[in-house]
Parts: sequence; structure tokens; C-alpha cells
Amino acid sequence: MERDLITKIQRLAETPIKDSSVLVSIGDDCAVVAPSPGRHLIITTDTLVESIHFDLDYFDPWHLGRKTAAVNLSDAAAMGGNPRWALLNLAVRPGLADSFWSSFSEGLLSRLSEYGVRLIGGDTVGAPDCLLLGLTLIGEVAEGKWLSRSSAQPEDLIYCSGNLGEAAAGLEWLKRHRKKRRSLGRQKGMHGISRAVLKRLLSRHLDPEPRVALGQALAASGMVQTAIDISDGIATDLAHVCKNSGVGAEVWARKIPVSGALKRASRILGISPLNLAVTGGEDLELLWTVSKKNEPGVRKIAAEVLGYGPFRIGKIVRNDGILLKTSQGVIDITYQGYEHYT
Amino acid sequence: MERDLITKIQRLAETPIKDSSVLVSIGDDCAVVAPSPGRHLIITTDTLVESIHFDLDYFDPWHLGRKTAAVNLSDAAAMGGNPRWALLNLAVRPGLADSFWSSFSEGLLSRLSEYGVRLIGGDTVGAPDCLLLGLTLIGEVAEGKWLSRSSAQPEDLIYCSGNLGEAAAGLEWLKRHRKKRRSLGRQKGMHGISRAVLKRLLSRHLDPEPRVALGQALAASGMVQTAIDISDGIATDLAHVCKNSGVGAEVWARKIPVSGALKRASRILGISPLNLAVTGGEDLELLWTVSKKNEPGVRKIAAEVLGYGPFRIGKIVRNDGILLKTSQGVIDITYQGYEHYT
Repeated sequence: MERDLITKIQRLAETPIKDSSVLVSIGDDCAVVAPSPGRHLIITTDTLVESIHFDLDYFDPWHLGRKTAAVNLSDAAAMGGNPRWALLNLAVRPGLADSFWSSFSEGLLSRLSEYGVRLIGGDTVGAPDCLLLGLTLIGEVAEGKWLSRSSAQPEDLIYCSGNLGEAAAGLEWLKRHRKKRRSLGRQKGMHGISRAVLKRLLSRHLDPEPRVALGQALAASGMVQTAIDISDGIATDLAHVCKNSGVGAEVWARKIPVSGALKRASRILGISPLNLAVTGGEDLELLWTVSKKNEPGVRKIAAEVLGYGPFRIGKIVRNDGILLKTSQGVIDITYQGYEHYT
Repeated sequence: MERDLITKIQRLAETPIKDSSVLVSIGDDCAVVAPSPGRHLIITTDTLVESIHFDLDYFDPWHLGRKTAAVNLSDAAAMGGNPRWALLNLAVRPGLADSFWSSFSEGLLSRLSEYGVRLIGGDTVGAPDCLLLGLTLIGEVAEGKWLSRSSAQPEDLIYCSGNLGEAAAGLEWLKRHRKKRRSLGRQKGMHGISRAVLKRLLSRHLDPEPRVALGQALAASGMVQTAIDISDGIATDLAHVCKNSGVGAEVWARKIPVSGALKRASRILGISPLNLAVTGGEDLELLWTVSKKNEPGVRKIAAEVLGYGPFRIGKIVRNDGILLKTSQGVIDITYQGYEHYT
């Protein structure tokens, strides 16, 4: 099985578009690549685990492949890097058909190729009772020009690149209506949520768009040093930034971007939009900090990439912790995020 | 748990010896490293799975850490590369104590640091029912100077770097005497195998030595283009080389290096030494091919690194497949190796 699966993926990964940086691909003891001169390497790895990060009741293999790529591309985006080469680590329980792996591989490779990334190697192991989908991504960044979690300064403003909470709402809907997903295309609406709203929320969870171009533009500007991707919710991800930078933050509830779709879904789901937006993970929007001086320049650059203005949602302060300022008062939300397990 | 474990590993990985190539280590969205100019990158990844590749009945966590490092270092060795940076991927089932992870991390880092490799990142996920230990290794090799699986030529001679079958014999002993491992230190001998013999066989399985210096010397010589590490047994690993190179091989049974220790153990285990040497995996010796013209030069280089002459065990032929020539006749052993699962 192992060798068949590797051969299948190898065949799919051999795209007609040649990348001259790839000297040895899948099938040797190591892959060999030629890095660009004058660049630093960025390296990230992230794994999705069945029943923790996804469930096959509602996740089809093609989207699962795309998401395995997207969560890693999002980490590259958060460094401002240019992702280039990927390795796939699969731990494969029994009971999955060949067609599952074809579809998964096609999804994965479609997402990677949208960002010019080549799959060059990996590892496939049988595992008695679990399904793990891991990817390692190697990319490049101009020397010294990466974005970190550790450079936020008091008085910096906190920005994010798009609406929050939609992926969490999509996940909540999927969990409540598991087996019904496949009939989605034929429904006009469902449980009070219109088809268009539903499609948007599900696609935010099943097929999130990593902000690679934005991360690269922010890093290249030289005006932003700090960024993170919102994978566990701002309350947790911003707490990582603050902890690494030795600062705190205040977040302004009324400034957090919440879409009309999320508001409508929230009513049906019975969860407040703010709760979903603050603690919900996996939107894969970027969060960054910027000094007052550089704010106008960075707003302009972000707006050019995004096609709309980015959202100023708070500011960095001297004290520890993350405080959410709402019209009802101040709430400590430090690490109050979506955690995949305890 | 996830954050505690990452913090523990992060602390252990912060060695007092600074490596100026590591610009961002564990704790950001990506690690950042500075590659050396004029080098190609080699990249490999390999995962050990509980109950398939190891069993905690007989594998202590410190050795498990060292082995997780060694199997990956061995892949770097087989490319002739200089391993430099590592990422650790853990999938962690419940029920393992903190002390397990401390000991595992110490073992892993001890092996990595022996080869000058820095742990710069990774990923830790909870998994309901499985334990996976994965490592990704990135290294460097002089431009164009790597060893592949695909350059073997008819009439090339096949060499290996050391005794084969000992790791397989050690594993067989461990499987038969599971719970008794801990009392090993106090036994003079066991089941007819002397303590010294037993220690050697067990250490070949539990703590194999990757042939990194030899791989580098062979690659640097410019006289060897083809190598693989023996992880699944020569019948399988040599078949990979032959398949990738479009050739076949004959292996001379009486030339396969078999130690006195293996012969003694074979009698007790009731398995022939030749069977263990040909199909047994995980010795992590290197296998390479060399033209007749370059044979003397390469023998000399290998002998300098190893401290003894390497072993000529066969030759590459035009036909497909791997034939084992014994005094009793010729046996087709293509892919007749130790497979971790079917």
C-alpha cells in the first residue's frame, strides 16, 4: 500500500511545469533543491489529525488536501515568505479507498500550485488507528526581511486583514449537520441560513485562503516587523505575539470585522458573533502590528493587495495580557481561544 | 499539554553552543535559517510509528529519541550531505508521562548535536490512539555533488560499509524477550548469547550509527554517484537503486559481511545469518556503487573513514532484478526485504 500511494502521489506531483530549482524530487533518500542566492530560508510544519482537526463526515478528501496545504501556506504568509517546496507526511489508517487518496492529492497539489509550490518528498506510514495529514513547507525571504511574533512595541496599532469568525461558524454548522453536507448543492437554504451565506461560511472553514501575497507585501515594505496568522482565534494568536514581544494588547470589540453573513448565522447558531470572531480559529487572516508613523503607508499597501482597507482592531500596551474592550466593560481574553484539544 | 511539551523541548533545544545560521528557532510561525552560499539543499523526512516501527515494551524513550534522529541522519548520509537543521513532528497519544518526553527529547538532541544539527521547529498534535515520532532534516551539499539512487551503471561494483543483519537479530531478540530488557545490565548472558554479543546486537537496533562522514567523503571524492542507506535490507534497498537506475544486480552471498556475533546469535534464534543479513533492515550501513576504474581510490577513502576496508558484495548487471548467488544456487531476492507493514 505504502509504495502504491507514494507512486500515485509522485505521478500527480510531476507537473508539466518544470521548476529548475528542484534537482531531485520524490523517490530518493532526500530531495535536492537549489535555493536562490541572497535569501534566508523559512520552514514550517503543521499536521491535521482526524477527529481533532477534521472529520470525514463533513470533510471531503479534495478539500482536505487543499486545507492541509492552506494551513501551512498561512504560516509562510505570516513570515512574509515565498513558499517554494513541500514535503507530505501521511499516517494512514486502514479503510480509506484509493479514490480518497487520488482526490486528496489532487486537492493538495491544486492549492500548492496556486502558490507556485512544488511537492518534492515526504513519508507515508501505516498507522493502526489514526489518520494524520502533515505538510512541511520550505520557502524563501529576502535576507533579514521576515515578520516575527516578537517585535511588537507599545503604542503599535493592531490590524487584521479580513472578517473573523466565519470559519468557526462554518465548522459549527458542519458539526451540527454532519451527514447533510453532500446534499448542499441542491438546497436553496437550510435551517434559516440562505444558500449563499452557508456557502461562504463553509468555504471559510473547508477551503480558507492563505494571505501569502499580503504577508510578502508587508515584509517587503520594511514598515511591518510583526505578524501572525489567525489560526486559533485572535485571543490566542495575539497572546502569542504579546508573550513573545513582552507586551500586552487591548482589542476594541466594535472594531472587529464581522460580516453580515456571520451575524445572520450567529442568530441561527445561538452564538454571539463577537464570541465567534474573538475565539474562533482557522480564518487564516493575517494579524500585524504597525507603528503610528508607518500606519498610513501600510494601510495603503494592504489595501492594494486586499482590494479593501484592512481593519484596525486595537493597540499594543505595556501591560501583560489581552483585554477586550466592549460597551459592557473590559474582559480579559488572554489565550481564550479555540484550542484543538486540552 | 501541547504547549507544555513544546516549551520543554524548546528549553532543551536552546543549547549553549550558538549556531549563527539559526535566525528564528522554535516558537514563531516559521523557523528562519541562513543557508551557506554555493550549496544545494537536501531534505528528508521519516516517521517512526508505535507498534509498527517500535514498541515501548523494549524501547526506552532516550534511545527512541536517538533512533528518530539516526534514521533521518542516515538518509542525509546516503545523499552525501551535511545535515544542519531539524523539525520534530510528534503525534502524541494519552498515557505518556512528562519524564518520557524529557528523556525522548534528550536522546533526540544528543544524537542531533553529535552531527551538529540544530532543532529549529516542529509540530505537536494530540492523537487519540497513536504515537508517531517524525523528523524532517534539512542539510547542505556542494552544488551538484549529491549521491542519488539513479546513477548505477552495468559493471559497477557494489560496496557496503559494514556488517549486516545485526540490527535485525537484535530486534528479533527484543521481540522474544520483551519485558526482560531492563534487567540486561545485571545478566552475564542470556539464553545462550553472551552479554557482549547481546549488547552489540541490541545497540545496532536501538542506537544505530548513521554513516554521515562516509557519505560526505564518498560524495566529495567525485568518484561515487550512487548510494543508499540500508534501512529495509539490501534485497529491498538495492532493488530501489536498480529500479531507479534501470539496471539489475547480482549479490555474492559469501561476500556479505556477517559478524561472529551474528553467527552466534543466529544459532540461538534459529534464523540463518544470511537471511538476517539480506532481508534484515535498520543496520543503517551505506551501500554504494563504483566503477572499476574508481574502485581503488574509493576503497582507500572509505577505509580511511571507517578504519577498515569496505565490503565488495556484488556488481550491477544489465538485467532487471536482484539475484543472490549462493553455493547452493541463485535466488531472486528482489524486494524480499523487511517491510514494516503490508
